[in-house]
Formats: sequence, C-alpha cells, structure tokens
Amino acid sequence: MEIKQNIKIAIDAIVFGYQQNQLFVLLIKQKYGDLKNQWALPGGFVQDGEPLKKAVVRELKEETGVKVTTMEQLYTFGDDLKRDPRFRVISVAYFGTVNPKELKLNAGTDAKEAKWFPLNTLPKLAFDHKKIIQKAFDRLKAKLNYQPIGFELLDSKFPFSDLENLYTTILQKPIDRRNFRKKILSFDFIAETDEYRKIGSGRPGKLYEFKSRKYNELLKQGISFEIKFA
Amino acid sequence: MEIKQNIKIAIDAIVFGYQQNQLFVLLIKQKYGDLKNQWALPGGFVQDGEPLKKAVVRELKEETGVKVTTMEQLYTFGDDLKRDPRFRVISVAYFGTVNPKELKLNAGTDAKEAKWFPLNTLPKLAFDHKKIIQKAFDRLKAKLNYQPIGFELLDSKFPFSDLENLYTTILQKPIDRRNFRKKILSFDFIAETDEYRKIGSGRPGKLYEFKSRKYNELLKQGISFEIKFA
Repeated sequence: MEIKQNIKIAIDAIVFGYQQNQLFVLLIKQKYGDLKNQWALPGGFVQDGEPLKKAVVRELKEETGVKVTTMEQLYTFGDDLKRDPRFRVISVAYFGTVNPKELKLNAGTDAKEAKWFPLNTLPKLAFDHKKIIQKAFDRLKAKLNYQPIGFELLDSKFPFSDLENLYTTILQKPIDRRNFRKKILSFDFIAETDEYRKIGSGRPGKLYEFKSRKYNELLKQGISFEIKFA
Repeated sequence: MEIKQNIKIAIDAIVFGYQQNQLFVLLIKQKYGDLKNQWALPGGFVQDGEPLKKAVVRELKEETGVKVTTMEQLYTFGDDLKRDPRFRVISVAYFGTVNPKELKLNAGTDAKEAKWFPLNTLPKLAFDHKKIIQKAFDRLKAKLNYQPIGFELLDSKFPFSDLENLYTTILQKPIDRRNFRKKILSFDFIAETDEYRKIGSGRPGKLYEFKSRKYNELLKQGISFEIKFA
C-alpha cells in the first residue's frame, strides 16, 4: 500500500527559565536559508527511526547545549499550510522548564547561536514561532491555575516569597498570599529547611525545598487546586 | 533543500457520546488489509493541501456519517515506531463530544461499518487505539475536574440530575451534590426553564438549559472550578 503524501514532520522546543521575576525563553539564530539570522525556536526534522520525544531532546542539545530529560507535548501545528515558506511542515511542539543554573549557556557547544530572551521582549521570530510561544505560555499559565507546577524554575532551596513571585509573574495578577501559602503547604510537597536567606532589606527568610517524590504521588492521585486572587 | 523523511502523518478521531449513565465511543470496522474486520477509531491520512482540523472532520463524515464542527486536539502519537504494522505513521488524535441524537447512526452513508460502543465494553482494537481512547478519556476526566464541560453530551433541555449523573459517570466517584449544584448554578451559564420532566417514580423535575454564549465568555476570562467529592 503506497501512500502519496508530501508533508514533512518536525519538532519545536519551547524552554522556559525564570530569574528575578522574569520568564525567559530559549531561542536560536537561524544559520541557513531564506530565514538566515532570524531568531527561532530550537527544533528540526524528525529522523525516520526516532521517537518524537527523543527528537526534541536531541535537537535541543545539538542547537543550544541545554540538556533536558523530558519535555511535555504542547500542540501539533498543522493547520496553516504555509507556516514554513519552503514546503509543508507539520510541527509537534514540546515545552518544558529548566532551573536557573541552565540560564547560563555553555559557550563551548553550538550554543553560541543560542540565547535566552525575556518573554516580554522577544525579537522578531521566524515561522509561526511567536504563536507557538504564546500557546506554550498560555498552557503554563492554565496549568498553574489548577496544578501546582513550576518548582523546577526555582533554585533547589528557595524562600517562600520566590514561589509567590513566580506565580504572580506567570499569572500576571496578584494572588491572595495567605490563602496561597496555606494551600501550597497543606499538600506537604514543600518542606521547610533549617536554612535562611536574607532578602532585600528585610529579615532573613526561611528556605523551603520541593519534595518531588511526594509531589509525583499526589499528581497520580490528581491534585485539585484553586488559586484565589487578591 | 531536500529533506529525506519516510514518515506518514494521519489523524484519528475519538468521539464520545453519553446516554443513560454510560459513555460511548464511536468505532469503525477496518475494510482492507491485514487488520481487516478489526475495530478501530475513525481516521486516515492527511491530504497534502488539507489542514489537520479539516482532515478530522472529513474522515469522520466519510467513515461514520457523523458531522462535527470542531474537535479538540488531544495528542500526537509518534513515539512508538511500530504503532502501525505497515510503516511509520505519526497520528494526531482529536477528540470531541456529540449530543445524544447523534448516537443514532445514519445507515444511508458508509456508516454501516460504524458503531457506538460503551466505553467499558470495547472490542479488541487495531493499532494503539486502546491507548489513544484511554488518553482521551483521561483528558475528558481531567478537564471536568477544573472546567465545567460536557453540556453538549446532554439533551438541549435536561433535569439537573442528568448533569450530576454525567459527572459521576465520567469522574467515576460520587460528588458532593449540594456543593456541585451551588457551584455550577453560581456561574450563570445554566438557566432554569419553565418545563418539567418526570424522572423515575419521583415528582417531575425542572428542566435546565445551557447558555453557550455566557459560558464562552466565562471560558475566555478563565473559569476556576473545584469539585468536592462526597
């Protein structure tokens, strides 16, 4: 059975990082072709014998030096027939988050053409990548509304205010801090440590850490979560 | 620029219907090939000049006679290289819900090979379609936990108990009925009508109807919703 089909399949990777109340996204500069020197998401064509999820990890590492273990599938872009000016390409987009130390790119790799951009000051982007990033951000925001996520965006030990600020940054509105703190702590996947860190001019704040095992257990059972806004 | 790639792209459609406390899924019987006479999801290869979302609507209509306007993208299955025994096929799965009158298939079309199966008594399925249906059901269930959905699965006017039963059926556990009723009605996208319907041996129950315009407005603003279980 011969299927005639002239469509190529690619993956794109949206990686978010967070630092000092700002969300960042990882971009690369196009090296070849009509779109040379334009910024775009890391990504590329899927190899014949390659599972989609492996293609994402490979492309990210090759193009940016950033190593991730898993990325979550976001959406497959295949309605706009001209999203790639060369020929029809359907792209399966994956998104993920990395911790702050990944925000320093390793200059020894191909990464010299890769750069973190603050989400609110992105350069002109190739293809439909602006739309793809918007969709990834919307998903991140939507998930935050019903599922506690984003811990991997923080340092391994963090003052509680960092988590609050992360939520406020992504949700783009002030949250009810007392209610948020009570809810988050009630799940028991964040534990107090014995360490303190001085923040600004205030007194040192206690550091917390994230318990991923406990979190994953809860996730399996299904966490129901509702954020109240201030 | 020539990209060598030997991968085909298909779509699959998971359509849910609901009747008398049971969820149904629409299947078709394979007509040709090695998998002849096996049941499978409606679906097929994407045409070169065809947006993905149009391919789904077309295949559904051709194979089952069921007309839908929109389907929601579920997930793209492209990690298992042998999910299709013939060659590598990446499938973009879409899911949707239809109202009870669609549960009667039109025998005049190709639909004689299509049939609704109760979700809990599915036949042996071709490809990885069992896994795809499971994923679609999981998504439906997850969405219900934080977003009021499923109204299109009911008659246009329904007793409130039908909505409760739908939720209990999909979530597979009893809900706190008083809390549920209060929450749902507080959103104002369900309105009382002047009609009543007799249910079982009890006294006639008031019928409600769904206000899709109000609902869509709320959806844009972002509905936060938490179901309490009994």
